[in-house]
Amino acid sequence: MKIIIVGATGTIGQKVTADLEGEHDIIKVGTQSGDIQADITKPGSVKSLFKKVGSFDALVSAAGGGHFGPLKEMDSDDFQVGLNSKLAGQANLVLTGQHYINPKGSFTLISGILSDDPVYASANLAATNGAINSFVVAAARELENDVRINAVSPGVVEDSPEFFDAFPGHRPVEMDRVVRAFRKSVLGSISGEVIEVW
Amino acid sequence: MKIIIVGATGTIGQKVTADLEGEHDIIKVGTQSGDIQADITKPGSVKSLFKKVGSFDALVSAAGGGHFGPLKEMDSDDFQVGLNSKLAGQANLVLTGQHYINPKGSFTLISGILSDDPVYASANLAATNGAINSFVVAAARELENDVRINAVSPGVVEDSPEFFDAFPGHRPVEMDRVVRAFRKSVLGSISGEVIEVW
Ligand SMILES: NC(=O)c1ccc[n+]([C@@H]2O[C@H](COP(=O)([O-])OP(=O)(O)OC[C@H]3O[C@@H](n4cnc5c(N)ncnc54)[C@H](OP(=O)(O)O)[C@@H]3O)[C@@H](O)[C@H]2O)c1
Ligand SMILES: NC(=O)c1ccc[n+]([C@@H]2O[C@H](COP(=O)([O-])OP(=O)(O)OC[C@H]3O[C@@H](n4cnc5c(N)ncnc54)[C@H](OP(=O)(O)O)[C@@H]3O)[C@@H](O)[C@H]2O)c1
Repeated sequence: MKIIIVGATGTIGQKVTADLEGEHDIIKVGTQSGDIQADITKPGSVKSLFKKVGSFDALVSAAGGGHFGPLKEMDSDDFQVGLNSKLAGQANLVLTGQHYINPKGSFTLISGILSDDPVYASANLAATNGAINSFVVAAARELENDVRINAVSPGVVEDSPEFFDAFPGHRPVEMDRVVRAFRKSVLGSISGEVIEVW
Repeated sequence: MKIIIVGATGTIGQKVTADLEGEHDIIKVGTQSGDIQADITKPGSVKSLFKKVGSFDALVSAAGGGHFGPLKEMDSDDFQVGLNSKLAGQANLVLTGQHYINPKGSFTLISGILSDDPVYASANLAATNGAINSFVVAAARELENDVRINAVSPGVVEDSPEFFDAFPGHRPVEMDRVVRAFRKSVLGSISGEVIEVW
């Protein structure tokens, strides 16, 4: 399979890449890193990515950020961060990628636990993740040629200890479980699912 | 109570307004209609709205749109419509309004059934509604001075027959139930809830 991994050098992306690269033809994408440079927040950059890659079998995204900060200090610009980056960025990958993906291909996006179990300062990421989850459910019903789409929604992961203090009482998620969730989406047959890894 | 109703002249807003205006001091807001004109998609316009109104006890929003169209024809600009209007617009009302609302006040936003039960062509509105629902859960945990926030999530309403064909098998929701959901949020004591009216 020819698999595009956006965010392949990130904390999550590198483990997903390591899991899949032995068996598949992997194209790593990042703004600075990877085999091809593209910025998911820029529709033009996403278009040239797919023009370069051509047809493919699976796209995995473990990229995109949001604003993390207290609601009482949050302004409209802060709120745009997650909408532009993690939300519209990943949607761009699907909206453009649907015209390049092979029949029976799959899209796997990343959301996160904050949509359902927010912590202090996470209102923008909560909104962003909630949007991604609902988007994959809706998009799954419209994708043609047996193309599938899912989201992986991890809790804070064991490889990101810098976030633990912001998630009091949350049990860090083993990376092996996150990697398996991506594998389930890419190699399995599910569609329209939010795979919670909590 | 001094209640701001954004979208007071709309299909849903006019019924909510009729229900509350006998007992409360209502300030109706729309881009063209109402007592005060403001555009929720423009942060500057939202700021001047609150400067004009000053302190208030409840804000109700039944405003904001999204793109409705097939996924296979949807592009990045289409996807921005709901993010800019219904999502960021309503978030702007909360982010700015939190600095003007009285203690024990409330925000009530509108989302909709498409986050959970999407129909054909609704991927942008699904994402938008999912974001709003997760936002109110997160924001409720951070609002201070006993300020509350909820979302009302209606199915297609009986007063919008023009949408019925796009919602095959959906039972149109009685306006009385939608109005009661807003009343429950504004006059009740719940917070961080998505009130499903399906
Ligand atoms: N870490 C956690 O505990 C956790 C838990 C739940 C959900 N998540 C979500 O998982 C995603 C990845 O998190 P992470 O901790 O692995 O992040 P990370 O370590 O910061 O890695 C981000 C990756 O994405 C790439 N990237 C960033 N912005 C990009 C853009 N605009 N266009 C294309 N590529 C871009 C980066 O490469 P370049 O630097 O080359 O751009 C990098 O490979 C985020 O959406 C995060 O919210 C993380
Ligand atoms: N109708 C349904 O079946 C249904 C079901 C579920 C959810 N919803 C949601 O409920 C909301 C209202 O729906 P509706 O059918 O009542 O809409 P509508 O009849 O079109 O009314 C919209 C109202 O919002 C105001 N408005 C529009 N854009 C605005 C902006 N940028 N800033 C400030 N005010 C604005 C309009 O006044 P002006 O013209 O003066 O701007 C009008 O009062 C929408 O978000 C919709 O997605 C509707």
